Amino acid sequence: MTAQKPILGITMGDPAGVGPEIAVKALADPDVYDICRPLIIGDAGVIAQSVKITGIDASVEPVAGVTDAKFNHGTIDVLDLKNVDLNSLQSGQISAIAGNAAFEAICKVIELALEGQIDATVTGPIHKEALNLAGHHFAGHTEIYAHLTDTKDYTMMLAAENIRVVHVSTHVSLRQACDLVKKDRILSVIRLADHACRQLDIETPRIGVAGLNPHSSDGGLFGSEEREEIIPAIQAAKASGINADGPVPADTLFSKARGGWYDIVVAMYHDQGHIPLKLLGFIWNQTQKRWTSVSGINITLGLPIIRTSVDHGTAFDQAGKGTAVADSLIHAIEYAAKMAVNRAQR
Amino acid sequence: MTAQKPILGITMGDPAGVGPEIAVKALADPDVYDICRPLIIGDAGVIAQSVKITGIDASVEPVAGVTDAKFNHGTIDVLDLKNVDLNSLQSGQISAIAGNAAFEAICKVIELALEGQIDATVTGPIHKEALNLAGHHFAGHTEIYAHLTDTKDYTMMLAAENIRVVHVSTHVSLRQACDLVKKDRILSVIRLADHACRQLDIETPRIGVAGLNPHSSDGGLFGSEEREEIIPAIQAAKASGINADGPVPADTLFSKARGGWYDIVVAMYHDQGHIPLKLLGFIWNQTQKRWTSVSGINITLGLPIIRTSVDHGTAFDQAGKGTAVADSLIHAIEYAAKMAVNRAQR
Repeated sequence: MTAQKPILGITMGDPAGVGPEIAVKALADPDVYDICRPLIIGDAGVIAQSVKITGIDASVEPVAGVTDAKFNHGTIDVLDLKNVDLNSLQSGQISAIAGNAAFEAICKVIELALEGQIDATVTGPIHKEALNLAGHHFAGHTEIYAHLTDTKDYTMMLAAENIRVVHVSTHVSLRQACDLVKKDRILSVIRLADHACRQLDIETPRIGVAGLNPHSSDGGLFGSEEREEIIPAIQAAKASGINADGPVPADTLFSKARGGWYDIVVAMYHDQGHIPLKLLGFIWNQTQKRWTSVSGINITLGLPIIRTSVDHGTAFDQAGKGTAVADSLIHAIEYAAKMAVNRAQR
Repeated sequence: MTAQKPILGITMGDPAGVGPEIAVKALADPDVYDICRPLIIGDAGVIAQSVKITGIDASVEPVAGVTDAKFNHGTIDVLDLKNVDLNSLQSGQISAIAGNAAFEAICKVIELALEGQIDATVTGPIHKEALNLAGHHFAGHTEIYAHLTDTKDYTMMLAAENIRVVHVSTHVSLRQACDLVKKDRILSVIRLADHACRQLDIETPRIGVAGLNPHSSDGGLFGSEEREEIIPAIQAAKASGINADGPVPADTLFSKARGGWYDIVVAMYHDQGHIPLKLLGFIWNQTQKRWTSVSGINITLGLPIIRTSVDHGTAFDQAGKGTAVADSLIHAIEYAAKMAVNRAQR
């Protein structure tokens, strides 16, 4: 990367969902062009349709390669994969066509990042069933990225407001999550958390490590994982110079993080981290029966390339209406740009 | 109870903690006297000292019985147990004297409520170790109340902002909490939740029941408790006319509840309910290094009497300074008054 603003590859996500609409909405925001040079990876026809649906004031410029993009606000550059037939595409429907188009965009953005043609990748929402219908048997983006970049040691980071959280485990049963609370894995996640904060310009990250059991087991009254696994992992992290603190009872840890006590939290299982982050990031309006804000974002740590993402789904019920909010995608773009700048400076 | 405002017995909590200070602060609020007739249960000397410490404008009136209380704002009625020697009491310290005084106040308030002399009970914060030092071997208020009222089927309800949550289990390890996710217990907690909402004037309570596993197990992909225990409990609740919905993935359930979708949430384990409630109710100020708001409250459901409580501890580090905030206690008083009025009208 040069001293120029970082080039971000932004996938449009599943073309039957809200991904293309939020992508063009995000690129209608001139602030986005102040921090990066954005390039959408997807189908130019779908993007042109989304410009119409959302009513934003922009033209679409299909390009064949990154070097052809102009990155001027008002003209949306699309690396055109030409892989969606608009006549067959049904908005709001699960389909193999849409799943395959989404998958090809992900493969392309990873390829460009690995080649150094772009500085970071940002992904729009995909649908797992559509992906599977298209014959791509992955649980989601994270697994595709890990596979295509040959990464073994990675974790999911969420961010909303000023809270960041990484997870020791994610999509496993709660019983299995208890089994996965092991010193080596916890230590590895603490290290990924520390590294991620440094990429975000935080000099000496303060890391709050959650307990697994209520009250962090109250000194062993209910549960032994704190004593046997979590405390040894924290001690090992400290010994290597990382500012890790805990185990902190999970029900005060997030209040403290929100109040500025910690820069990042290590959660022991999926919902421990997802409940507080989505509570802050997802705002439901009961009168309108819809999410009015979905500002949380998702980052995969441990990859050789930068990947940030929206933290919501394809929202098929809103697709094609132009009403989806782009907050989450804009935040994901901001994070990716910041991480790319910091990586370049190191 | 008559058509008069309900009489509330408010225990002062551990006298070495912030309990007495927040009690007098709450009673300095004239709005409290608009909704109830408050009577502090504790030591009048401690209460008089707390009036001085906090600098509120009120006198203290020790009374021997409920019928002696005048309930006028500006004069704090204290049912005087005369059980604290101010010369021996050390603010901010764990002691058997303080633990015993706190325990006696709890026993007294329960006795008065069971006799019908008061309409509801509100408890200040106690310290478990002080309680144990004094020879009273209980985990906390809830267990004392259950024991003294001979109650088997009870649960902890938390409330903060517009979210209410009841728990299938509380102070057990996370592994044991998984074992306790059983149809009968879930159904019993759903019923307690429904009943509690009706006591709060909600005609047809909408109850959101959480899943145990992430994504409520995504149709059984990770975990079987949703299919085997939670769904059957919800079906049984619906069959008996209760408006129960779920299992809802825990990481969207609380956002929906906050947005008005549900009146109450059934959480499967301690932290599932405590993380979101404390995130909303507890505000940490990193500059001042203290909690600037602790507005959540705790209610025990299933008892023959009404019991609400602050949702924070004795805060020994703040005791004697007059700085503790009374928000949580005031909310607990409001809930107790409302529940007492509704119970009387049924």
